[in-house]
Amino acid sequence: MTIVVGRAVELEFLRWLGERLPADGRAPLGLRDDAAILELSGPRVVTTVDMLTEGVDFLLSQDDPERVGRKALAVNLSDLAAMAARPVAALVAMTLPRDGALKLAQRLFEGLIPLAEEFGVALAGGDTNTWDGPLAISVTLFGEVSERGPLLRSGARPGDVLLVTGKLGGSRLGHQFDFTPRVREALWLAEHAELHAGIDLSDGLSLDLWRLCQASGVGAILDVANVPVSEDAARWAVRLADGSTALDHALSDGEDFELLLAMPREAAERLVKEQPLACRLTIIGECVTGECAGKAGLWRREADGSLTPLVPRGYEH
Amino acid sequence: MTIVVGRAVELEFLRWLGERLPADGRAPLGLRDDAAILELSGPRVVTTVDMLTEGVDFLLSQDDPERVGRKALAVNLSDLAAMAARPVAALVAMTLPRDGALKLAQRLFEGLIPLAEEFGVALAGGDTNTWDGPLAISVTLFGEVSERGPLLRSGARPGDVLLVTGKLGGSRLGHQFDFTPRVREALWLAEHAELHAGIDLSDGLSLDLWRLCQASGVGAILDVANVPVSEDAARWAVRLADGSTALDHALSDGEDFELLLAMPREAAERLVKEQPLACRLTIIGECVTGECAGKAGLWRREADGSLTPLVPRGYEH
Repeated sequence: MTIVVGRAVELEFLRWLGERLPADGRAPLGLRDDAAILELSGPRVVTTVDMLTEGVDFLLSQDDPERVGRKALAVNLSDLAAMAARPVAALVAMTLPRDGALKLAQRLFEGLIPLAEEFGVALAGGDTNTWDGPLAISVTLFGEVSERGPLLRSGARPGDVLLVTGKLGGSRLGHQFDFTPRVREALWLAEHAELHAGIDLSDGLSLDLWRLCQASGVGAILDVANVPVSEDAARWAVRLADGSTALDHALSDGEDFELLLAMPREAAERLVKEQPLACRLTIIGECVTGECAGKAGLWRREADGSLTPLVPRGYEH
Repeated sequence: MTIVVGRAVELEFLRWLGERLPADGRAPLGLRDDAAILELSGPRVVTTVDMLTEGVDFLLSQDDPERVGRKALAVNLSDLAAMAARPVAALVAMTLPRDGALKLAQRLFEGLIPLAEEFGVALAGGDTNTWDGPLAISVTLFGEVSERGPLLRSGARPGDVLLVTGKLGGSRLGHQFDFTPRVREALWLAEHAELHAGIDLSDGLSLDLWRLCQASGVGAILDVANVPVSEDAARWAVRLADGSTALDHALSDGEDFELLLAMPREAAERLVKEQPLACRLTIIGECVTGECAGKAGLWRREADGSLTPLVPRGYEH
């Protein structure tokens, strides 16, 4: 059979993957037919896609392909967590540099498969290509809405408090690859508490908070002294030595992949007292009525109570 | 707000797209939340993804971005047609060269949107990035199975005849961009005839026929004199002047995006007689029992009835 490099790599890769993957009753066809068929529990599908690329989201000269493959799925799991949706299946489309394409594809999947198994994601299909360009990998993830319905960005109300999972900042020291998407936390919280709105922190707390506020038509006051700053945010500030503080990084570094939630104060305070999850829950501020004198309505409140405008600042990648 | 090129392009593009697109009740969230929510008519989703890349699937120096954007959706529509599934919604992930990224994204969508409208596909979300590499565009398409269930590659039986839509070969002269995915034809045929198996011709008739046979565990005899050869296949053979014939191109050129179906002879003969569709239907062979003396079980039959092995040969892209 005369076929060319791209297809030959795809066939060889699919043969390897067929042996590597466990059979999964929910998506039996995607690897050997024109499309995958997913059997869900209801007619409502939550779906998201992210494309990661060399030089933007990773550097193969520094980052193991296994970590890159894991991240390609993890960022999408984080998006589903933000909707409080249960992951079901994924499609993986890749375009690989021609040299060493098969080995690279296998290593990407050696990182991706364990995370898929951990979160019950069936790898239902995809598309494998080669080219003269650098690696691009795009994962589409499908999920089901829980009984509580999807968690949207747009449900925050004045008076809600802002709750965040984990610690923020300095993700470039490793967390950007090794984070655990907050799927379990989101599902648990959606089941046990009244959540009004949610977003995952992919581009920096201040920028993603601004997005949540924009979608909800509210403003927000961020109690900066309460923001949980990671040890890596402090290390990163020291390493950069550019005058930035650990708090600056907690406010504006991207790829924390923690959850930012808006919810009633009482429920949030109960959660913070009980700390029912493996990761810490922290109240970092509150929602207020929308714009203020034409300003974006985002404020930072210092420990002494003084208010200054908070400038949304995103991760420069 | 300090954000960088990639995000700035994405925000600007989403603003443009929000105005450009009609509102669609089925997928109201994808452009402004962490994920899209699709409301389907049942719990079974058919889904497929294809990533197209510069230098492999198109050359922006020759091919208008509008045609590239159209193709990125059309190839996925062809995959759904092969499953006899009804398209519902799509996600579009792109990584654009930094220079002129916004304009390129808009032109891609100016080609993609009319096709989406023609086939009732809601553009439900996506991911827009920039980098120093060439264009990569990945479309994930979602569909619903018709009442007859999905059409698989694996259902062909010995005695079935092979039916093909349209004409084959020479797609590089333009058809690879301008083809109409056979969605309507597939749905009509699935409703009005008994179909056993189907595949879309993306990599060349002989190779895709081999795939259908492999999936079904049958062999096949192709009546080469009956293969509908396109005018472009003849033109392409003349242009190449490498000794190849128009028939060679009809057998092995990729990107015809026609349907190859296996079905009972009587029903196929009725269809061929009635020609109920806008494109021609042609019987080009029959399925036979599986392997023959260890050979792949693919045969070509000349007009005089002589049989020789048919070598599956795919599109070299």
